[in-house]
Amino acid sequence: MPQNVLIIGAVAAGPKAACRLKRLEPDARVTLIDRDEHISYGGCGIPYFISGDVSDARELQSTSFHMVRDEAFFRRAKGVQVRSRTEALAIDRVARTVRIRDLVTGVEEALPYDQLVLATGSRPNRLPVPGADLPGVFTVSNLGEAIKIKERIAAGQVNRAVVIGAGAIGLEMVEAMADLWGIDTAVVEVRDQVLPGLVSPAISRMVLAHLAEKGVQEVYLGETVLRIEGDSQAERVVTDRRELDADLVIMAVGVRPNGELAKSAGLDVSDSGAVLVNSRLQTSDPRIWAGGDCVLGPNLVTGRPGFFPSGALANRHGRIIGTNLAGGGDEFKGMAGSFVLKCFERAVAAAGLSLARAKAEGFDAFSTLVIQADRAHFYPGQELMVLELVVDRASGRMLGLQGFSPSGDALCARINAAAVLLGQGAHARDLGQVELAYAPPFSAAVDVLHAAGFAAENILAKKSRMVDPEEFLEQFNGGDGDTGFICLDVRGPENAAPFVARYPDRWVNIPQEQLMERLGEVPRDTELVLVCNSGARSYEAQITLDHHGLSATRNLMGGIMALKKMGTRLTD
Amino acid sequence: MPQNVLIIGAVAAGPKAACRLKRLEPDARVTLIDRDEHISYGGCGIPYFISGDVSDARELQSTSFHMVRDEAFFRRAKGVQVRSRTEALAIDRVARTVRIRDLVTGVEEALPYDQLVLATGSRPNRLPVPGADLPGVFTVSNLGEAIKIKERIAAGQVNRAVVIGAGAIGLEMVEAMADLWGIDTAVVEVRDQVLPGLVSPAISRMVLAHLAEKGVQEVYLGETVLRIEGDSQAERVVTDRRELDADLVIMAVGVRPNGELAKSAGLDVSDSGAVLVNSRLQTSDPRIWAGGDCVLGPNLVTGRPGFFPSGALANRHGRIIGTNLAGGGDEFKGMAGSFVLKCFERAVAAAGLSLARAKAEGFDAFSTLVIQADRAHFYPGQELMVLELVVDRASGRMLGLQGFSPSGDALCARINAAAVLLGQGAHARDLGQVELAYAPPFSAAVDVLHAAGFAAENILAKKSRMVDPEEFLEQFNGGDGDTGFICLDVRGPENAAPFVARYPDRWVNIPQEQLMERLGEVPRDTELVLVCNSGARSYEAQITLDHHGLSATRNLMGGIMALKKMGTRLTD
Repeated sequence: MPQNVLIIGAVAAGPKAACRLKRLEPDARVTLIDRDEHISYGGCGIPYFISGDVSDARELQSTSFHMVRDEAFFRRAKGVQVRSRTEALAIDRVARTVRIRDLVTGVEEALPYDQLVLATGSRPNRLPVPGADLPGVFTVSNLGEAIKIKERIAAGQVNRAVVIGAGAIGLEMVEAMADLWGIDTAVVEVRDQVLPGLVSPAISRMVLAHLAEKGVQEVYLGETVLRIEGDSQAERVVTDRRELDADLVIMAVGVRPNGELAKSAGLDVSDSGAVLVNSRLQTSDPRIWAGGDCVLGPNLVTGRPGFFPSGALANRHGRIIGTNLAGGGDEFKGMAGSFVLKCFERAVAAAGLSLARAKAEGFDAFSTLVIQADRAHFYPGQELMVLELVVDRASGRMLGLQGFSPSGDALCARINAAAVLLGQGAHARDLGQVELAYAPPFSAAVDVLHAAGFAAENILAKKSRMVDPEEFLEQFNGGDGDTGFICLDVRGPENAAPFVARYPDRWVNIPQEQLMERLGEVPRDTELVLVCNSGARSYEAQITLDHHGLSATRNLMGGIMALKKMGTRLTD
Repeated sequence: MPQNVLIIGAVAAGPKAACRLKRLEPDARVTLIDRDEHISYGGCGIPYFISGDVSDARELQSTSFHMVRDEAFFRRAKGVQVRSRTEALAIDRVARTVRIRDLVTGVEEALPYDQLVLATGSRPNRLPVPGADLPGVFTVSNLGEAIKIKERIAAGQVNRAVVIGAGAIGLEMVEAMADLWGIDTAVVEVRDQVLPGLVSPAISRMVLAHLAEKGVQEVYLGETVLRIEGDSQAERVVTDRRELDADLVIMAVGVRPNGELAKSAGLDVSDSGAVLVNSRLQTSDPRIWAGGDCVLGPNLVTGRPGFFPSGALANRHGRIIGTNLAGGGDEFKGMAGSFVLKCFERAVAAAGLSLARAKAEGFDAFSTLVIQADRAHFYPGQELMVLELVVDRASGRMLGLQGFSPSGDALCARINAAAVLLGQGAHARDLGQVELAYAPPFSAAVDVLHAAGFAAENILAKKSRMVDPEEFLEQFNGGDGDTGFICLDVRGPENAAPFVARYPDRWVNIPQEQLMERLGEVPRDTELVLVCNSGARSYEAQITLDHHGLSATRNLMGGIMALKKMGTRLTD
């Protein structure tokens, strides 16, 4: 007698589990149910549907061979039954049934199962402020919402939008509306940087500078939304600092797992409501499996369960569950937490923890930021890539790597290799030994990824002392011109002269290659911040000065190029 | 008393070792010697210098901040003495001296050392044929040769070139001459494919098809060069099949290590003449270190010492040697053998072994080829990426991954992650679990890299039986129309109809989603080759047919798209 498998949730993990099971066990009876009418779509594609890059919502729901993955497709091509517009109300684990309601007819019934899969996903948070449920306030949650947003935009009803939340989805939505549609878009973020928790303040400033270059000038950081106002629909977002007109409001303030069904069935769930599973993705009831955005999974860097909603992860989960439903022994080992984000003409990507998150997780961590060409520096078309490596001070273990670059593909070429190592608890020195495919059009013989590993190694060996560009700026621009340090600029005079002219008391120029001969000119009795374009020559200068007993120096990480990318100004 | 370190060879490993040592031990006395006048240059950039992408040879010899790395630079910025145009004649290990000759003055002297580094590199092979040393026959060996080649081209003396050898450097040189300069360029390769040993026949055909698209029609495979003819300079390359006129001949037939100095000093060298080193890169004399193109290193896939000349590896070696010269304990663990090659508008990249090399190394290996969009299939601008995964049949261990793609960066984003795993002896199933940074503009939720891992897993689990496109073509086009099999095309009729019309006896169409209902129409009593666009739907069809007892089927790897990329035709 073939087994009967019921799967709740038909977006990513659910359909993947269903199809994998059917390939392994063609006789199995598999039913997918979903509340929604849209199933099996690429939810991560929603911003590109809204932007117009993807013209038709059905493309998000299509196979690579342009067949729409609807109920008929699943039945005919996959042998899987789908019941959309059907809600799962409750699980009876003793009777092994799920009570469902047909949302069109209202009819309820109990569906039996031999094994059950929960792929119930996550839902976007809504701020608990007045007006949050006004018409015109949207979350980026599902294809239905996305279609409504795009209809409004396409009908010319949106000249001005406000995005609440400057995380990855918030920024994708900013680009989706501002770029092609030319909608005047403002952003409000309660924390003091864009991509909070994901990248450092320095990299977030680089993103901010690029947003400004692309015409997104209004990014209000550290502001709390108090309410959304409007008569019959959202007209205004009111923060603790200002009022922002809006024809459309996007609320992108995180998501949370849909674990209610599991919880009310008595399955183990976390405090946050996520379903708890073992490495085989089995819940506390061995007949019930769960995967995708509704579960916690082992974070390979922290060693603790973490919540990491991702379409890619949901698909990995789905395949593992499908294998195990058929009696296999596949395991989900965990994730390092990789992401990449396109933001206009830049990409931001990361694996593992940012410095702030590492510290919040209890690590005594430091980070080092490097800037270097993303291919051989002599190869035409090379662009600067920024990488920031987060390292545990005591063990030297890599904790995270974040990057910012014009080429997302080139950035992923570094981040993906690092993600493998991060998941294994590798040491920072291992990064310097990564074997990157090398040819001048695609990488450097000593690549920026290696440079990040070497920089961290040198800090661990106490051969290098750095100052973060963000901290440098604060100190340089604060204190009424008395920064407590002098900048020793070790670039050529043609680069350094304007700075020397502007800050005659605080900026001194001795090119690195002349330093050994001109040691007598080095200012004493005060701390020096060593400055070059990238931080490489100033590191050499630091070694020379250390060797001559001048050790009150810090090296500016990423050098003048980091400051430039941050769009910052040295004031006086 | 500071130590005295002598380094022979000043291109990549040598200067890197010198500079690293000086950073760790600023007092050390370090002398670099080199036969050549050009030192510390990016040799891998030579094809781009010849093409004109890099306009001035000095750019290859410059730092990222545009300072030429000449003798003065090393002395002033790095505290390293350089003696160029100086040849090392012999090592006296007892006296700890190296006998050198100044190639300008002819004066010989003995330089003492406390520690010695051999970074003598490799030199290009020259075919032992008559005329190989005629003027106009060049190897791609050093900057001096490159300058001479470019001078000839720039002077308009080259309308027609012949490149002997279709390995990576040969193909880079083809592009360098044919693309921007428009030189009519022919290629002669003794083996039966381009990039022999590096990629499979199927991928090599894709490269060949692209070369033809870009106007490089004359690629003569399986031909042996007998001689080069000409009066005062090369005018003609004569093979066993034809005569090819040539104003310029490039010989790119591999390189070999410069191990003579080590050998005559009684150090351990391999049969091929490469210096043997331990994991600290120490030779059989503990005071003598060696790295870069002149040594063998552990191949992490074969577990045996291998020769892998690479500028990136030389730099890694140099840094390790520098650390160890200063008393450190750095180790070179080995390499998986990664490379990437730009070939006009395509990139070829790999890590580990090709199927042919894996077999030659004694593995019972198979490979699986997958084709999929390099980003979300709905994202505009996506391109097809081809990956071929080589796996050990008995253990399931990954042995190699090769790829072909319009975007080299996107290809490296997969190859680099795989290289980390390959160096660790990972299982094919680990590839399906690699955490790639995901967003639709850069990758797919189930990425082509995952697909390669899954395909191999399914073959290992005996759930999938494949036929290689190269083998398929041979069988389909051979045998006077009696191929011994029928093609069951499981695509939609709009795709399949032209094939059915052309091959009425050998081509049947039943779309995959109708297969379960139309089982009765499936031809029996003959083997079936299952065909779709990519190999994915035909895999599903294979499972369905297996389930109904029809197991005499093979699935065409990479489907019709692979055949198309190979530029092949089904004949009748």
